[in-house]
Amino acid sequence: MAATAARPLDRADLEALDAYWRAANYLTAGQIYLLDNPLLTEPLRREHIKPRLLGHWGTSPGLNLVYAHLNRVIRARSLDVLHVTGPGHGGPAALACCWLDGSYSEVYPDVPRDGEGMRRLFRQFSFPGGVPSHIAPQTPGSIHEGGELGYSLSHAYGAAFDNPGLTVAAIVGDGEAETGALATGWHGNKFLDPVHDGAVLPILHLNGYKIANPTVLGRLPHGELDQLLMGYGHEPHYVEGDEPFAVHRALAAALDRSLDRIADIQRTARTGGPGAGTRPRWPMIVLRTPKGWTGPEKVDGLPVENTWRSHQVPLSGVRDNPEHLVQLEEWMLSYRPADLFDEHGRPRPQILRHVPEGDRRLGSNPHANGGRLTRSLPVPDIRGHAVEVTGRGTSAHSPTGVLGGLLRDLTAATADRRDFRLFGPDETASNRLQAVYEATAKNWQEEILPTDEHLARDGRVTEMLSEHNCQGWLEGYLLTGRHGIFSSYEAFVHIVTSMVNQHAKWLKVSRELPWRMPIPSLNHLLTSHVWRQDHNGFSHQDPGFVDHVVNKSPEVVRVYLPPDANSLLAVADHVLATRDRVNVVVAGKQPSHDWLGIEEAVDHVDRGVSVWEWAGTDTGRDPDVVLAAAGDVPTTEVLAAASLLREHLPDLAVRVVNVVDLMRLAPAADHPHGLGDHDFDAVFTTDKPVIFAYHGYPWLIHRLAYRRTGHPNLHVRGYKEEGTTTTPFDMVVLNDLDRYRLVMDVVDRVPGLALRAIGVRQRMAELRNRHRSWIREHGEDMPEVLEWTWPG
Amino acid sequence: MAATAARPLDRADLEALDAYWRAANYLTAGQIYLLDNPLLTEPLRREHIKPRLLGHWGTSPGLNLVYAHLNRVIRARSLDVLHVTGPGHGGPAALACCWLDGSYSEVYPDVPRDGEGMRRLFRQFSFPGGVPSHIAPQTPGSIHEGGELGYSLSHAYGAAFDNPGLTVAAIVGDGEAETGALATGWHGNKFLDPVHDGAVLPILHLNGYKIANPTVLGRLPHGELDQLLMGYGHEPHYVEGDEPFAVHRALAAALDRSLDRIADIQRTARTGGPGAGTRPRWPMIVLRTPKGWTGPEKVDGLPVENTWRSHQVPLSGVRDNPEHLVQLEEWMLSYRPADLFDEHGRPRPQILRHVPEGDRRLGSNPHANGGRLTRSLPVPDIRGHAVEVTGRGTSAHSPTGVLGGLLRDLTAATADRRDFRLFGPDETASNRLQAVYEATAKNWQEEILPTDEHLARDGRVTEMLSEHNCQGWLEGYLLTGRHGIFSSYEAFVHIVTSMVNQHAKWLKVSRELPWRMPIPSLNHLLTSHVWRQDHNGFSHQDPGFVDHVVNKSPEVVRVYLPPDANSLLAVADHVLATRDRVNVVVAGKQPSHDWLGIEEAVDHVDRGVSVWEWAGTDTGRDPDVVLAAAGDVPTTEVLAAASLLREHLPDLAVRVVNVVDLMRLAPAADHPHGLGDHDFDAVFTTDKPVIFAYHGYPWLIHRLAYRRTGHPNLHVRGYKEEGTTTTPFDMVVLNDLDRYRLVMDVVDRVPGLALRAIGVRQRMAELRNRHRSWIREHGEDMPEVLEWTWPG
Repeated sequence: MAATAARPLDRADLEALDAYWRAANYLTAGQIYLLDNPLLTEPLRREHIKPRLLGHWGTSPGLNLVYAHLNRVIRARSLDVLHVTGPGHGGPAALACCWLDGSYSEVYPDVPRDGEGMRRLFRQFSFPGGVPSHIAPQTPGSIHEGGELGYSLSHAYGAAFDNPGLTVAAIVGDGEAETGALATGWHGNKFLDPVHDGAVLPILHLNGYKIANPTVLGRLPHGELDQLLMGYGHEPHYVEGDEPFAVHRALAAALDRSLDRIADIQRTARTGGPGAGTRPRWPMIVLRTPKGWTGPEKVDGLPVENTWRSHQVPLSGVRDNPEHLVQLEEWMLSYRPADLFDEHGRPRPQILRHVPEGDRRLGSNPHANGGRLTRSLPVPDIRGHAVEVTGRGTSAHSPTGVLGGLLRDLTAATADRRDFRLFGPDETASNRLQAVYEATAKNWQEEILPTDEHLARDGRVTEMLSEHNCQGWLEGYLLTGRHGIFSSYEAFVHIVTSMVNQHAKWLKVSRELPWRMPIPSLNHLLTSHVWRQDHNGFSHQDPGFVDHVVNKSPEVVRVYLPPDANSLLAVADHVLATRDRVNVVVAGKQPSHDWLGIEEAVDHVDRGVSVWEWAGTDTGRDPDVVLAAAGDVPTTEVLAAASLLREHLPDLAVRVVNVVDLMRLAPAADHPHGLGDHDFDAVFTTDKPVIFAYHGYPWLIHRLAYRRTGHPNLHVRGYKEEGTTTTPFDMVVLNDLDRYRLVMDVVDRVPGLALRAIGVRQRMAELRNRHRSWIREHGEDMPEVLEWTWPG
Repeated sequence: MAATAARPLDRADLEALDAYWRAANYLTAGQIYLLDNPLLTEPLRREHIKPRLLGHWGTSPGLNLVYAHLNRVIRARSLDVLHVTGPGHGGPAALACCWLDGSYSEVYPDVPRDGEGMRRLFRQFSFPGGVPSHIAPQTPGSIHEGGELGYSLSHAYGAAFDNPGLTVAAIVGDGEAETGALATGWHGNKFLDPVHDGAVLPILHLNGYKIANPTVLGRLPHGELDQLLMGYGHEPHYVEGDEPFAVHRALAAALDRSLDRIADIQRTARTGGPGAGTRPRWPMIVLRTPKGWTGPEKVDGLPVENTWRSHQVPLSGVRDNPEHLVQLEEWMLSYRPADLFDEHGRPRPQILRHVPEGDRRLGSNPHANGGRLTRSLPVPDIRGHAVEVTGRGTSAHSPTGVLGGLLRDLTAATADRRDFRLFGPDETASNRLQAVYEATAKNWQEEILPTDEHLARDGRVTEMLSEHNCQGWLEGYLLTGRHGIFSSYEAFVHIVTSMVNQHAKWLKVSRELPWRMPIPSLNHLLTSHVWRQDHNGFSHQDPGFVDHVVNKSPEVVRVYLPPDANSLLAVADHVLATRDRVNVVVAGKQPSHDWLGIEEAVDHVDRGVSVWEWAGTDTGRDPDVVLAAAGDVPTTEVLAAASLLREHLPDLAVRVVNVVDLMRLAPAADHPHGLGDHDFDAVFTTDKPVIFAYHGYPWLIHRLAYRRTGHPNLHVRGYKEEGTTTTPFDMVVLNDLDRYRLVMDVVDRVPGLALRAIGVRQRMAELRNRHRSWIREHGEDMPEVLEWTWPG
């Protein structure tokens, strides 16, 4: 809980704040410009300047100011504060601050907190072999990539969920605030429980400009901005100015008022005082200071400070323009480095007066290296949730419905720990996971009416019709070391494609950093998938998220397509135990055939690809053809095709293969899950036709398998962008993935079969035609499809 | 301009409004449930009911209400109104209304406006072979797919831009309002010029519930909601209730007040009255009515009306549950169909009292079939903008910079027509298109300061740091028949992946509808691409948007990778003339070598793939190896590799191929641009090693070319998710796409060369090592790379 203020600020406090700020600004400019001479102990010369000037100055002075003041309140109030910096291209500011507080040198001992360390800090920034210009996994104290903008608030709320002792300071840039993700990110406060969650303190940094334009929020009249922020449910505290000490005083006061208010809110909620149980109006800060503040006022006669021109490198010609060189030296000396650093380049003690110690430093907060806090999940034994399979496909269950039971028990088992959550855009029940409501409720901080169901302040299912928030909240939750699942309509997970990109990139780099501890994986459950959009049609049909994910680093990405309920349980059991991955699980919610007993399912998931001997007719002999499936609907069609082949072509040796771990198809050299060529060939053969029924766009299978010996014989059926509001079986017919078409493919591809099986082929074509006229007349699938079961 | 009201409402007006509304509600329910007996002329029986009940009732009564009232104001004020319906899953409402106004039967004569037509209208809805359940291209009067939520406001603003006579009524669902896209969509009013643009009237429909939850905005206290909407810059008019006639009166009054206000705003702005030139506070309407209003109040003892339970099909067991059947009949009869339709099933004249005529009907508005209004663009002769190429690669230009000149002249040429716009997230100048500011400015309706540059009320460059808005605005602009380009950082166009999905799906279906006229293509210019993120690093490196786009319908998607400035001009010339496509153009903004004269470039773009004979050494003989490139950076590396091969292995017959139209690689059967196998083989050979340097993820080339005879010899280099903030050449080295690596690939792959060229291979490896140590020491690329030019 945020403690209330200890004592008023005195002059020494203010001067220490200002000195820290000047030091951070000095270090920021130094990183952008200097190769050497970090303390300006000699006159600045051309050879001290980097040949390529890269970085973002504009936002940095504001970020440094916020860090300086957060240090003070952390120390004064013994707070546990995590910072999330939206304008993350201000990377040099974050680096400057954690070098100053000592946390940088702790994880990077080759960059010590002295003159030589400062030289290296400067040189490495945006330099080949060095550190990126944005806040990145390499930046201590950060959970938030500074590349793409818009996710600061959702990351901040995700970090605060179930962390009642944590305060997350979320610095929102006014450029960032224009993005869709950020615009809906404000509503995170409708899902923050003041009892069980920590606090989020948004600090909207209005520096007025983006790359080339004023910002929308920066130019709003004050009254309209105030209405907007009040409308977002906040109590805004304004800090505006360009006179440093006045701003220091105002920002310190605003922080104290805000943190007092947070402490009040939490005390009230947690002790059941008046107002407990109603959504509070959380404080926030609006910080309006000039872009590029304290940098060059004018360059080449044009205003730079307080304009968009200070966004990146305000003096761009320093190496070749002596005037720029002089201006840079004057600018850096204006911070009075000799007052800030001793003769060894170490920060003087007085500038560190407010810097907290140990894990309370912003650069060392353990929540920002969430793996330090992760505990393994107590996943219940999946055998207790398994579907009993007495015959192949004789029963049917909703795979996600069965998973719901497991997740209910997992939710119950983490009731006290509160380190597992489900996120989804208004679809948890639609996706058949509603059993979890027996163990928890949906989080809701607005008014709850008597007619509402499953809503509660402390619910651990978090639903909002914003994929951006669901994804951002889950990322924030994972990055701070907890566990979760995002369940979504398959087509609309594309909304967060770009966010998943950034998270996968974060994980890829994190894995390469020994000091970053592994965090729980990002688990995407894609359901309500392409084949069962009965209500919704073409706009809801897009299985291409998998195509996107497989482009990311192979160390990070995994894709699972469990063919039935028990397989989904086995997949869930596996992915919940993994770390540092993006696991994509595609599973239907409609009742579908149960094929595998639970032990078989565990084995299947373990292998990733299995020959289903019970379904094939190739026992003891070489197959004539391989029928392979990946996905629940394709599995049913492949098995139905196999049963048709048994009936019509009993002599044919058919091998049936099922793929649950899609990356098994990739070469072993390309992906850690890739099958070796020998194993691949043993399953798929090197010379027999393989008819592959795939859940998604068929080309993906070719993209994974093109280097395999048998690839020329591989024939893939999948979704090819044909669909509408129609029956389930019509969807597979429209895309040529249906059992009849698969049998025709077998007839067409098995050498020598075409002539012998001409009647079978014709019969299949007739059945496709019968289907078409049947559904147009009856509006539902024909009985032989609806009632089909495996004959075994 | 929205005219002011003509006369007050009388009782007959109100009754006609209510009758229309009841008729639309009746037709909505009928579509969801009935196969037959549309007029309930006989008692409802099981066989009249559809076997599968699909559709969304909950939002539909509210949509019908809005349509009824829009009809009245269109007619009373002679308005030109386009509707954009955010809750587009209310498809049956839109269909009901345009069947009632007669526009449906005009485009679908097989569904006439009589009893038989009504029967067909009902039967076809969500029925195999029929019409989708959502608003879709098949729906007359719509530009807005009803699948994915969130784009209504950005589509509405896009439609209103440069349409000064148009009023766009944008119905925003309260579920939809939670999405990121919609949350930032409100800021469209900061870019709407009351002089040159039309009006957008947002109608926020608070029916309180989503699929399974209350909505965030629906549960806000009134004061907070009011602050939010005022904060968005609107003047909200509230209509709330559940007593039909009271709501009719209130909604009619709110519409009249809002349209009066719009007329005032436009009059003031256009006549230069007091307040002209400042951003007005545009009106909006908040309509709070029950979800599923007028439907079953309770079903099986549970409340349905005014809860989430009315979202889809309120009575789900009608076919097998006699109680539900009775309830359905009572519900439908409650609208008194006999009062609404005559004995032939035709709407009685009194219910059509307010329905406008001809193109003023919402179902027939020409802006909703934008191709009806499209004029060809007066693209200037690209030869006037061409770069002079006196030697191969002896000069260098920024391709997008050169394109900027063309776009400037095109902007000037459309100054009066105002049917061409550029959209981008704050990056037009960063993307080097700033020449357009010589012809127009950036649109800005907030305060303009003396220090600002290139901002004006009537600017036709529209920049906001929201890819969602840029994309949505452009889509709205295109769908209403105008032209445009979205220029974006390559990595961050992923933010709108899902929107592009929906637009491509819209185009695919539209092309199949004879009455939908072709609209200008969606042109994406992806620049600031993966290879030149010098400032930004890993988070800004993602060339995977192309992978995503090629999954969409081949009739719709095209991908171009011009190798130089003149090729980009030729590509731009082509794509601006196309219709109904998604054209993705990837081009760098940094100065890069000029390879082709303009006539060569036009020819190259026309062919799509060319052998660059001047660069090869295979003239008059079979090549030993093919070096192919797609993309500007890969082209340079391939040519540098070719020059190294000339130097080190002068006997080797090297063919150099350039691919500008990526879909040429696909089989002709799969894509209209696909090369026939004969042509493909003539370029790439069937048996020689092909070293292919590709701009993006290398697997895409395999995915396109896997069926080609020579595919086993194809070896692709591309971006493989390796990168950081580093030098341009280091980026290609990190991803093994550099000239030295390509030469090594040639040595490794050309049969018999490995031994002979062992020294060359070693020299290349040394150069790669030299590069690594050079950049770490100097921070920039080594002279032989920086200064390399084609030796020819």
